[in-house]
Amino acid sequence: MDERTEDRRDDVFVDAAALAAELAEEHPADIAEALDEQEPKTASAVLASLPREQQVEILDGPDVDLTSELIEALPVEEAVRLVSDMSADRAADLFRWMDEPARSHLFARLAPETQAELGRLLAWPEHSAGGLMTTEFVTVPSSWTVGETLRHIRETERTRETIYAIYVLDPLSQKLLKAVTLRRLITGEPEQPILDVAPRHDPITADPLMDREDVARLITKYDLLAVPVVDENAHVLGIVTVDDMIDAIIEEGTEDAQKFGGMEALDEPYMEIGFFSMLKKRGGWLSILFLGEMLTANAMQHFEDELESAIVLTLFIPLIMSSGGNSGSQATSLIIRALALGEIKLKDWWRVALRELPSGLVLGSILAALGMTRITVWQLAGFHDYGEYWMLVAATVGAALVAIVTFGSLIGSMLPFVLRRAGVDPASASAPFVATFVDVTGLVIYFTVAMVILNGTLL
Amino acid sequence: MDERTEDRRDDVFVDAAALAAELAEEHPADIAEALDEQEPKTASAVLASLPREQQVEILDGPDVDLTSELIEALPVEEAVRLVSDMSADRAADLFRWMDEPARSHLFARLAPETQAELGRLLAWPEHSAGGLMTTEFVTVPSSWTVGETLRHIRETERTRETIYAIYVLDPLSQKLLKAVTLRRLITGEPEQPILDVAPRHDPITADPLMDREDVARLITKYDLLAVPVVDENAHVLGIVTVDDMIDAIIEEGTEDAQKFGGMEALDEPYMEIGFFSMLKKRGGWLSILFLGEMLTANAMQHFEDELESAIVLTLFIPLIMSSGGNSGSQATSLIIRALALGEIKLKDWWRVALRELPSGLVLGSILAALGMTRITVWQLAGFHDYGEYWMLVAATVGAALVAIVTFGSLIGSMLPFVLRRAGVDPASASAPFVATFVDVTGLVIYFTVAMVILNGTLL
Repeated sequence: MDERTEDRRDDVFVDAAALAAELAEEHPADIAEALDEQEPKTASAVLASLPREQQVEILDGPDVDLTSELIEALPVEEAVRLVSDMSADRAADLFRWMDEPARSHLFARLAPETQAELGRLLAWPEHSAGGLMTTEFVTVPSSWTVGETLRHIRETERTRETIYAIYVLDPLSQKLLKAVTLRRLITGEPEQPILDVAPRHDPITADPLMDREDVARLITKYDLLAVPVVDENAHVLGIVTVDDMIDAIIEEGTEDAQKFGGMEALDEPYMEIGFFSMLKKRGGWLSILFLGEMLTANAMQHFEDELESAIVLTLFIPLIMSSGGNSGSQATSLIIRALALGEIKLKDWWRVALRELPSGLVLGSILAALGMTRITVWQLAGFHDYGEYWMLVAATVGAALVAIVTFGSLIGSMLPFVLRRAGVDPASASAPFVATFVDVTGLVIYFTVAMVILNGTLL
Repeated sequence: MDERTEDRRDDVFVDAAALAAELAEEHPADIAEALDEQEPKTASAVLASLPREQQVEILDGPDVDLTSELIEALPVEEAVRLVSDMSADRAADLFRWMDEPARSHLFARLAPETQAELGRLLAWPEHSAGGLMTTEFVTVPSSWTVGETLRHIRETERTRETIYAIYVLDPLSQKLLKAVTLRRLITGEPEQPILDVAPRHDPITADPLMDREDVARLITKYDLLAVPVVDENAHVLGIVTVDDMIDAIIEEGTEDAQKFGGMEALDEPYMEIGFFSMLKKRGGWLSILFLGEMLTANAMQHFEDELESAIVLTLFIPLIMSSGGNSGSQATSLIIRALALGEIKLKDWWRVALRELPSGLVLGSILAALGMTRITVWQLAGFHDYGEYWMLVAATVGAALVAIVTFGSLIGSMLPFVLRRAGVDPASASAPFVATFVDVTGLVIYFTVAMVILNGTLL
């Protein structure tokens, strides 16, 4: 028994050294991927056999789950040393992610200045500019030359991966004056003042509480590699870099797609999330929508007499309801996305309504034409007998379709404004929510139209 | 009359000069935004009054619609001069966008070498790495030192906005050996060979025909600012930069959201697309879904006898149908996103099926419990009378919900695999498509379950 355990340990040891040698020439992102497939014990052994610089690069990768696994599997002195070398934003992510008590144990072992730096970062909300920023950035006084700046970077900033721009400060007030990209810096002559190679415009900056979606908009609009986060005194607190922003944009996209599909955002990859966590995130919304949809049964009960006297009306209920849902879902997805991209603002709601009203009328008329043709063809060709008053039935279906599609387009386009106004993410389950709402109102519209048109004949 | 025209021309002239002076200190992206709000004539007059460098920066912005408007409104010599100075990828975008005959007229006036360069870029498909790349990049032979490289950039590459990395080539074969980021370059000593500051791993490269979504995945995974596009001989053809990639990721997100909402991707902002173009993109899918949904009428007709003998069954049709649709839409949006992010591959379809089957059963059981409780409470509290066999009706609704939600989850999760396999974008209208499919089959399931459970009583 003891021998077998020994053997197994040896195996792990041999594997780790061999794997480390094999992986050493790979890109850190590929090494991380390979480590992710190993047991934490093996993975941390491989990590320990890699060159120092690569260790930090791997831990600085975007997979915080892997980083925390590796850190927890390492001897604590080693873990402390590596966490101190990690970029500050990634280390903060790690502490956001780790579970207690490992989290507190590790934090307590860090040097006081590292604790203070991480504490400042962790104080900001996770999805704000402050929560995304890193504190590794380069500032120089505006009195320096290009050559002095380059020498400073060469001598003191060797290890910083995130030098995309140099931030030029007023030597007295330490206020941010200009941002100089590396490209501009190296195209300057060494003896030129740094302000000579700075752009004319003021630096683009973010407030620490700015939401990550707004930071993404800044970075996209101004084609930035990094945006400095400044406080109310124009002092630089940190920078948000473009690679973190891409990760955030993709994460937002996934969350929006999932919310839009009618569930809570999973926050974890589909294959990795636990079965019951997934059920919870899906079952909650599914039940809420189900409870909402129960109102259709109430609506139907209300019209039960009409149903019994004109059973032919029931044949078209699914068709009419789904058309309202589809038109609402189109309008909602259009407007959510346009709002998210900043193409339209809250105050544009009436412009949107003025576009959706005629759109709905035209789209509804197209479907009405299709629906009425269907009934007419089936009736005349003898596929089905819709009864003596089939023309009135066709008219009812047509009129109801125009009304419901118009209503669906209007409600679908206005709901995102209402949600945004109320401070709720417009993507939250909105397509199924619109569909449910339109289903219930659609039934009422359908039967009301029927009572008007079929009054004195079928009803 | 003549006098008024004169006056108006004067106004435009004064406006343009004043506006140019006012905007000169702004960021080019903000100037572009201001110009976008002006008439093309005024905007091009303002552009002409700005410093040369800013003119090119504005035209290099992401709004190709604005760029083409400005270029078309300028005198042709001026337009030719500016297009020659634009970055090659933006100029290629411009020619992709412009209408004939302006496009051909402008192209014919360009210098032969510019024509050849643009021709090479325009030959690649628009959404491929080749179609996105720009030809402004810096290569140096591997025999150079850091100092030589820096001097080369300073002397010859002043105007290139896209220097994110230096590509080191084999001096003989011109094959790409290493990619050196600017940061690594400036932290090296001037006399060091450039290969000394290169990373250990081989450069990450893209094939010119690689789809933009795959290029985005490379850039995200490896945290790159630019990825070199190389041919089969490892010769660098161009680079795709991170800012173009962000634009592409956001555009893909919008397209996916719109397709998912059940329409064709608009390709233009909601407020800018023409009314009839929008109707076409929405009406097409709406009609297709409507035609599909007509099958529900067929299904209902098929069960008309059952409907007449058990009108109570109709009350729950909308409830049951929408539950199937919602569960299908959840599963579909989860899987589409996981496929898009590469979290799951085509070959994982059976793993997904094995997760969705129990998920569907549990979710369906939850809804069944809710639905049966609703019927029981309403019956016992006297809110509504579901008849003598109300318990059997409740059982029918419950069993149908379990079956339909399970079926919806399975179909919804498998459809993206089928579409991807068939070479179709899984995002294409899939949620409404799944809902339509599940509506029709859901009705059949409902009535079949009813015939089994209610056989000999209501039916």
